[in-house]
Amino acid sequence: MDYMAGMPVDPRVLEAMMPYFSQQYGNPSSLHSWGNEARKAMEDARTKVVAFVGAKRSEEIFFTSGGTESNNLAIKGVAYRNKDRGNHIVTTAIEHMSVMNSCKSLMKDGFNVTYVPVDKYGVVDVQSLEKAITDKTILVSVMYANGEIGTIQPIKEIGEIVHRKGALLHVDAVAAAGQVPINVENENIDLMSISSNDMYGPRGVGAIYVKTGTRIQPIIHGGGQERGLRSGTENIPAIVGMGKAAEIAKVEMKPEGERLSQLRDKLIKGLLENIPSSFLNGHPTQRLPNNANVRFSYIEGESLILSLDMLGVACSSGSACTSKTLEPSHVLLAIGLKHEEAHGSLLFTLGKQNTEEDVDYVVNVLPDIVKRLRSISPLTPKELLS
Amino acid sequence: MDYMAGMPVDPRVLEAMMPYFSQQYGNPSSLHSWGNEARKAMEDARTKVVAFVGAKRSEEIFFTSGGTESNNLAIKGVAYRNKDRGNHIVTTAIEHMSVMNSCKSLMKDGFNVTYVPVDKYGVVDVQSLEKAITDKTILVSVMYANGEIGTIQPIKEIGEIVHRKGALLHVDAVAAAGQVPINVENENIDLMSISSNDMYGPRGVGAIYVKTGTRIQPIIHGGGQERGLRSGTENIPAIVGMGKAAEIAKVEMKPEGERLSQLRDKLIKGLLENIPSSFLNGHPTQRLPNNANVRFSYIEGESLILSLDMLGVACSSGSACTSKTLEPSHVLLAIGLKHEEAHGSLLFTLGKQNTEEDVDYVVNVLPDIVKRLRSISPLTPKELLS
Repeated sequence: MDYMAGMPVDPRVLEAMMPYFSQQYGNPSSLHSWGNEARKAMEDARTKVVAFVGAKRSEEIFFTSGGTESNNLAIKGVAYRNKDRGNHIVTTAIEHMSVMNSCKSLMKDGFNVTYVPVDKYGVVDVQSLEKAITDKTILVSVMYANGEIGTIQPIKEIGEIVHRKGALLHVDAVAAAGQVPINVENENIDLMSISSNDMYGPRGVGAIYVKTGTRIQPIIHGGGQERGLRSGTENIPAIVGMGKAAEIAKVEMKPEGERLSQLRDKLIKGLLENIPSSFLNGHPTQRLPNNANVRFSYIEGESLILSLDMLGVACSSGSACTSKTLEPSHVLLAIGLKHEEAHGSLLFTLGKQNTEEDVDYVVNVLPDIVKRLRSISPLTPKELLS
Repeated sequence: MDYMAGMPVDPRVLEAMMPYFSQQYGNPSSLHSWGNEARKAMEDARTKVVAFVGAKRSEEIFFTSGGTESNNLAIKGVAYRNKDRGNHIVTTAIEHMSVMNSCKSLMKDGFNVTYVPVDKYGVVDVQSLEKAITDKTILVSVMYANGEIGTIQPIKEIGEIVHRKGALLHVDAVAAAGQVPINVENENIDLMSISSNDMYGPRGVGAIYVKTGTRIQPIIHGGGQERGLRSGTENIPAIVGMGKAAEIAKVEMKPEGERLSQLRDKLIKGLLENIPSSFLNGHPTQRLPNNANVRFSYIEGESLILSLDMLGVACSSGSACTSKTLEPSHVLLAIGLKHEEAHGSLLFTLGKQNTEEDVDYVVNVLPDIVKRLRSISPLTPKELLS
């Protein structure tokens, strides 16, 4: 139950990729017929991603090496290209580190960044966001949904505000794409980052949607692939895989989302009911179907992870990207948790291979694990030890 | 015979990668045991790349999304990190577009770049290079070998000069790695870019060697993977594949290089002897074992490519990255060819699946193709038409 940290590649995706490893390994930039085949495969994949995000034109999708690169490209590429118009960027307190640290790198280069707060459920404070946008603001970057606490943002409404104020809206949809339907046109999105692996495609590939007319410049220079926005020999097997993953997700996302939502709710309910002093992190309803983030007072999430690991259950204490540091998650702190509350949080991300039995198992074993860990914690109040 | 544009993945490499797509898909940053397995697989691959390039420590190898990104990271990462020491970069006239255009992007940001010329064989003029280095020079970037004309540079000697002058040496070894042995320690290299696909590994992954103590900063920010130098969830299947490719290349490079050198020489000799007014581009002996670049007066390389393609032979008119533009290759112009000579050049890059029969076939069919094309070219002198 740690799908967010890494998803398996769907067997149908892998099957689609296989011929491009060893038989059809042409370079789309080559003139001969092998190059043509590679080019066709790539454009077919692009068409599938276009349909997946609801873009209008295939020229609006560019392939990258993944979500992190897409976020870097969106933020730095727009900032440097539009610095003649302003040097201010607005984002939120709960963005992914690739957004956070791209903004931080821009601050060393003369840009100012405003971090808009979120409420206790992790929903962006829309009024603060509106107030934060000035005539110097060139870009607003808000994630579609937070992979750690699951909260989904009111992107369409945010997009209206951003456009009314004359700025561009970038949406990091890495955690959301493949979980919930997204339509860039309907939801007022100018730039959007998605990652293949977060929708059962291969790693090492992602995409960025750039609405026609948006001013952006590359961060990686070279042979001019992807119409100059992302140089480097195109990773055809991975791109084909991402196309297939997008095609599958477009069809299966809805029924699978309903199935996962039920599992998620059963898991949350089971844990909150059976474990005293346990609480849901994130929004109770506006949340990703695959995400359950629960905190348990008086214990460390890391001890819980290791205990569950010994029983064959994988989960996380927060985003995998930050869980290797001892710092508490900036997302959990932003929704108002204290350091020790953040450390006592456990993130389950469900996926295709999870069943009702998996959920029952966790609901069955976790209460005893929590009880045992609390019994050796000096922080646990007496009434919980009985 | 267009291996440079795209190589098939070695079946042994693909086999090594397969488990990491759908079974062992852990995230190396996760705490649980699946994360540990991913971490181990990644470090095992790193160790193989370390051995392949002759680095001293595993901390000197960082995985990237490919050769283009490695070159961007080396040049921009060193330039921005060391701008307190100087704003001058020295490179050559025949570098890959990822080096050329990274330098170009730096010129917009206050850096100066000197492009050192090469001789008629494509060998860097070492004296010019030495003279070009000033006390403002922070970085010298010279490719190990040119993928288009095959010429190998005297990197060790260049490294001595660069270090004597107090600058850093970056080597783009994308075309050379896997073809000829390279040892970063013996050859005075501070930073080196390599790509997996150019040594029968998967696309979408590369590496950069950064000698301990070298000051460099990231170009892609995020979760702090690769010890902060390259953020983004690690592409484990691809990294495992690159490790395997490096391991295989270390063992098989020498015998395969000898085999290819013989095929290459047979191809070059066969074409030059059987086609009047044909010439070798690049150095006659200091060249990559897989590279044969021959020019034929009075005709267009593109017509040759299409004619050979109809007979099932893939080749290129230059680097795949630039062959889609109508501009002649900057490499061929830099070795002193006229525009029409550059356009009449044909690049064969040989690989594991090429046999003596392939070479015989090309030597057999190409003279007639050239003759036919020359017969319809208004430029062809009468004496060649008889």
